[in-house]
Amino acid sequence: MLSTTARTTLGRSKERGSTDRNDLYDVLDTGLICHLGVVVNGHPMVVPTGYGRIGDTLYLHGSTGATSLRGGGESEVCVTVTHLDGIVLARSIFHHSVNYRSAIIYGRARPVTDPEERLAGLRAVSEQLAPGQWDYVRPPSRKELAATAVVALSLEEASVKIRRGAPKDEEEDYGLPVWAGVLPLVTSWGAPEPDPLLPEGIDPPVHILRRE
Amino acid sequence: MLSTTARTTLGRSKERGSTDRNDLYDVLDTGLICHLGVVVNGHPMVVPTGYGRIGDTLYLHGSTGATSLRGGGESEVCVTVTHLDGIVLARSIFHHSVNYRSAIIYGRARPVTDPEERLAGLRAVSEQLAPGQWDYVRPPSRKELAATAVVALSLEEASVKIRRGAPKDEEEDYGLPVWAGVLPLVTSWGAPEPDPLLPEGIDPPVHILRRE
Repeated sequence: MLSTTARTTLGRSKERGSTDRNDLYDVLDTGLICHLGVVVNGHPMVVPTGYGRIGDTLYLHGSTGATSLRGGGESEVCVTVTHLDGIVLARSIFHHSVNYRSAIIYGRARPVTDPEERLAGLRAVSEQLAPGQWDYVRPPSRKELAATAVVALSLEEASVKIRRGAPKDEEEDYGLPVWAGVLPLVTSWGAPEPDPLLPEGIDPPVHILRRE
Repeated sequence: MLSTTARTTLGRSKERGSTDRNDLYDVLDTGLICHLGVVVNGHPMVVPTGYGRIGDTLYLHGSTGATSLRGGGESEVCVTVTHLDGIVLARSIFHHSVNYRSAIIYGRARPVTDPEERLAGLRAVSEQLAPGQWDYVRPPSRKELAATAVVALSLEEASVKIRRGAPKDEEEDYGLPVWAGVLPLVTSWGAPEPDPLLPEGIDPPVHILRRE
């Protein structure tokens, strides 16, 4: 079950809320980037960044110089992952909507200092964006590791919203001579584009070619 | 030219920054949703939502009951729009990256009360997600308009970051027998899915069928 704190109890569109922890894992595990929200000098700041999940912990990484991770000790963050699945075209402007799956996680970002957890966290972030690459390419050097900040965020306080399916129109609008339905948004991988500096004879490995 | 306040002057990856206002318009005009950051009780909150642009003003809408827009008068917000274009697969884990185009806008959200500007703002938000629909379906009723909050955000304080092209690896890694390049992420529209309640004989109009 997902938590039901004041922040994660949905005020509106309750029917779109999910309290199934597997829905949370699913939204996170099928995503590529998140939007990380922090408060800097009292103002909100939202930056896109990578993430990875191990069990009920989310890991984020960044340059040690990045403002968004420079909270100094623990800092309150909000991490949002959104999949946009389609545009819901209703019979009235008011009922236009989108089909989506989104997760919002609130909590304190904990700087990860333990070397083993740091490496595991970085691996999770890397494999989320580029599965199979951690064991395929050159691993991080000591210097590269030192330049990378890793923070952890518990998935304790999270909410999931999902909207699927056809528009919901006003009763009296169903008779209008207007097409209604969903225009699906499809995301797919293109053909791998080799680095112009790649020597001839090196083909992309299966984990890149066959990525789902 | 884009502004160069402390918040929008890039600290890192300066070579990815753009100061061309047309890049800002381009990132915004080709996006579908943004991530809106606000501060609620001192904590960051990031929610996905629609938006629309008219000149140098961004419009957002929401239910009048939504926490994210309930700032009460003007409130500081951050709006981020991100396009993820591909995964940059380098010869080392450290230089893995993503190709992307993102815009971050900071400012005070101004509640829009003037009826004409409200309607124009709502039209912009609607046309961004579902172009052509405003003139095709039933327009908003007075009651529906009253239930919708519209806020405006100036594009004065904005930054744009763009990364394109091949990985940048360490000199000594170029000799590794490792494939490197970009795995492009492609977003496209699927075939329109009619509402099961749609009467027979109503076909999708051209602006839906031929959407780019």
